[in-house]
Amino acid sequence: MRDDKLRNDVNTQMYYAKQGIITPEMEAVAESEYLEPSFVCNEVAIGRMVIPANINHKNISPIGIGINARTKINSNIGNSSVSSNIESELEKLYASIKYGADTVMDLSTGGDIDLIRQKIIDASTIPIGTVPIYQALEGVESIEDLTEDILIDMIEHQAKQGVDYMTIHAGILLHMMPIVSKRLMGVVSRGGAILAQWMLHHHKDNPLYTAFDRILDIARKYDVTLSLGDGLRPGCLADASDAAQFAELKVLGELTKMAWAKDVQVMIEGPGHVPFDQIEMNVKKQIEWCHEAPFYVLGPLVTDIAPGYDHITSAIGATMAAYSGAAMLCYVTPKEHLGLPDLNDVKEGIIAFKIAAHAADVARHRPKARERDDSLSRARYEFDWNKQFELSLDPEKAKAMHDETLPQEVFKEAEFCSMCGPKFCAYKISKNVQEMGSTEDNK
Amino acid sequence: MRDDKLRNDVNTQMYYAKQGIITPEMEAVAESEYLEPSFVCNEVAIGRMVIPANINHKNISPIGIGINARTKINSNIGNSSVSSNIESELEKLYASIKYGADTVMDLSTGGDIDLIRQKIIDASTIPIGTVPIYQALEGVESIEDLTEDILIDMIEHQAKQGVDYMTIHAGILLHMMPIVSKRLMGVVSRGGAILAQWMLHHHKDNPLYTAFDRILDIARKYDVTLSLGDGLRPGCLADASDAAQFAELKVLGELTKMAWAKDVQVMIEGPGHVPFDQIEMNVKKQIEWCHEAPFYVLGPLVTDIAPGYDHITSAIGATMAAYSGAAMLCYVTPKEHLGLPDLNDVKEGIIAFKIAAHAADVARHRPKARERDDSLSRARYEFDWNKQFELSLDPEKAKAMHDETLPQEVFKEAEFCSMCGPKFCAYKISKNVQEMGSTEDNK
Repeated sequence: MRDDKLRNDVNTQMYYAKQGIITPEMEAVAESEYLEPSFVCNEVAIGRMVIPANINHKNISPIGIGINARTKINSNIGNSSVSSNIESELEKLYASIKYGADTVMDLSTGGDIDLIRQKIIDASTIPIGTVPIYQALEGVESIEDLTEDILIDMIEHQAKQGVDYMTIHAGILLHMMPIVSKRLMGVVSRGGAILAQWMLHHHKDNPLYTAFDRILDIARKYDVTLSLGDGLRPGCLADASDAAQFAELKVLGELTKMAWAKDVQVMIEGPGHVPFDQIEMNVKKQIEWCHEAPFYVLGPLVTDIAPGYDHITSAIGATMAAYSGAAMLCYVTPKEHLGLPDLNDVKEGIIAFKIAAHAADVARHRPKARERDDSLSRARYEFDWNKQFELSLDPEKAKAMHDETLPQEVFKEAEFCSMCGPKFCAYKISKNVQEMGSTEDNK
Repeated sequence: MRDDKLRNDVNTQMYYAKQGIITPEMEAVAESEYLEPSFVCNEVAIGRMVIPANINHKNISPIGIGINARTKINSNIGNSSVSSNIESELEKLYASIKYGADTVMDLSTGGDIDLIRQKIIDASTIPIGTVPIYQALEGVESIEDLTEDILIDMIEHQAKQGVDYMTIHAGILLHMMPIVSKRLMGVVSRGGAILAQWMLHHHKDNPLYTAFDRILDIARKYDVTLSLGDGLRPGCLADASDAAQFAELKVLGELTKMAWAKDVQVMIEGPGHVPFDQIEMNVKKQIEWCHEAPFYVLGPLVTDIAPGYDHITSAIGATMAAYSGAAMLCYVTPKEHLGLPDLNDVKEGIIAFKIAAHAADVARHRPKARERDDSLSRARYEFDWNKQFELSLDPEKAKAMHDETLPQEVFKEAEFCSMCGPKFCAYKISKNVQEMGSTEDNK
């Protein structure tokens, strides 16, 4: 699909899929997901799967995001005006790819945003997402100075650069503001808050909503997947599943249909902070109201009381969300609510979300999902320590933890570890038991 | 209940509860759980709640474990022959109490086990659990040398010392061994593996089962709560919910009835490693087969591929288990499968499980469970950083993470952090929006 002849006003995977044309991207997805290419093509055609791959992102390895694919995870990187350094953002990109992020969002809001993004796109084999309103705001004095043209021009600028998917907060509308004023935490989405202030100042509706058709034209030209943002996502348990959140979700469902009519690929973004018992309901509602467009959730965090550990509070919610039908999980790092994540926070966030995504894939019985668990367990039971490390999500850490007490090479085949010691190792005893037990069976 | 006149052959909370006598322990539990004392008394009488409080554990603050109480968490401490030091085990006890463990199990298997345990009991205000077979095995040459009398004597010895609850693997039986031999990981419970080997060697049934009546007499005298161990808990996803596991669970249900007939308090231990989609089924089955005796689960881990992060894999499963009806969660540390946890591992394990227990309590709408979330969120939205830290599960860590980028005292009231910087802080913008939005409402 990279031919110049295709560089016309419609270049989306959905456009081809609707005609039954299986693109190289669909074939690549089919292979990595153990699915039939025709099945992938149909999923993309009906909007249940997206393949975010901007025609200008040259070295991308396409992935499919949707309920019938492996659960994906996204890592957020990018600087802020308080903390900014191109090299450290590139390091975060490389760490994201190394530890298994499926996509990366560059959320830079400070420094040379254009340069950082270009470097990230050039270096990345995985899809890159952005939130164009951030850079638009950097270019003006204050929120009120934003205009429809500034926003649309920025979307086009980033689309040309090769951004694969963009968060567009087109569903937050003026009439929802009175409900928001009653919330404990108001609007915690940055994009949502910016647009809310803009709307109230100008007393006009959201320009991303009123000019949605212009956005679609750009998206269909470069095949930018629209990630319809939840500007009204709850920022604490108390605000979860409220009227504001669901009013916006309803609008996102309508925008989805508009996008599909123009062959534009769409994901829907979701909360946030949600009590564990409300997660399945949230996912089911999104699936119904947004016509099965892939659900891309942030966490959700299942409690507010653990700053410093929000990779865990959110991995719990993310597992439940993916099990209930979410297609992609946006990671949360331990530094959430406290500061800009550093390289180690990025790694911790990714591992926590690899766990969540994989646990959900196993629970949903996705093809071959459990094979790695079984291989690792077999190695564990056979005291093949090196193989156990190798199959781990984080081999270096597993090895380092083991080696804290038993560093010598000889213990890599030892039939125990320091947890129980040799006499109390259940696996060791159990091997005798299994031999004796199978004899028992023949009696 | 601490009077000497009560030191007869039956001193259990259940004994008094069945007569409608509200003990000081029940009153203390009622107060801390926001329940009526008569309700607690009834829960204990029917076995749906236990109050583990050995009559010889003098300085204990009683807690209630059961589906109608706050979800409890247990921290495992104790040395192994490879790694042993009394002081560091006491430090783990203090850390467990500081970070909010509700009970502690001393699983020591090396060094001066008696002395370590006595020091732990004397120092602990929370219930202490043990697995008596570990010390029994330390006293003999090999597993085959264990006898019924050695096991019973050890249980009595530890009961006299003041142990509040004991894991007794009385449900693993000889006839289950052939099924076990087909497992990927056999018997991964240490107690279970020891008994399995003993049974196969002697070709006799489990002495903890055949002499269960003798154990009950000891338990009823000192009010030791029996924690009926799942010797056949699965050690990997592949072995979860198999015939061996459920055959044992059935026996544990029968033993529960025997214990209740003698007024002995009972919990049931549960897995282990379980795919996320099987957790609710496991809990429901336990509730039914064990007549609502409190379920005390280890994790469960929802994937096997993350050694070094098993506090996370298990916190995910634990949340689901508690949400489904488990009463107590045994923590798993990052060091699980790799080595003996150190002080930091203990802390990480406890925080992860505080998150799981609390998230489940919120999801189950337990009285006042969400108040702390709302208070913290309010402090967060008001940029009251110090109050936010104070309400956190780990205030030091939250503060340290925030201070990495903005250490100066002035930033403790700053209306932003380094994540987004001042211009992009959603909370700051949102406060304007809420003011403007409420005006909108009055139009």
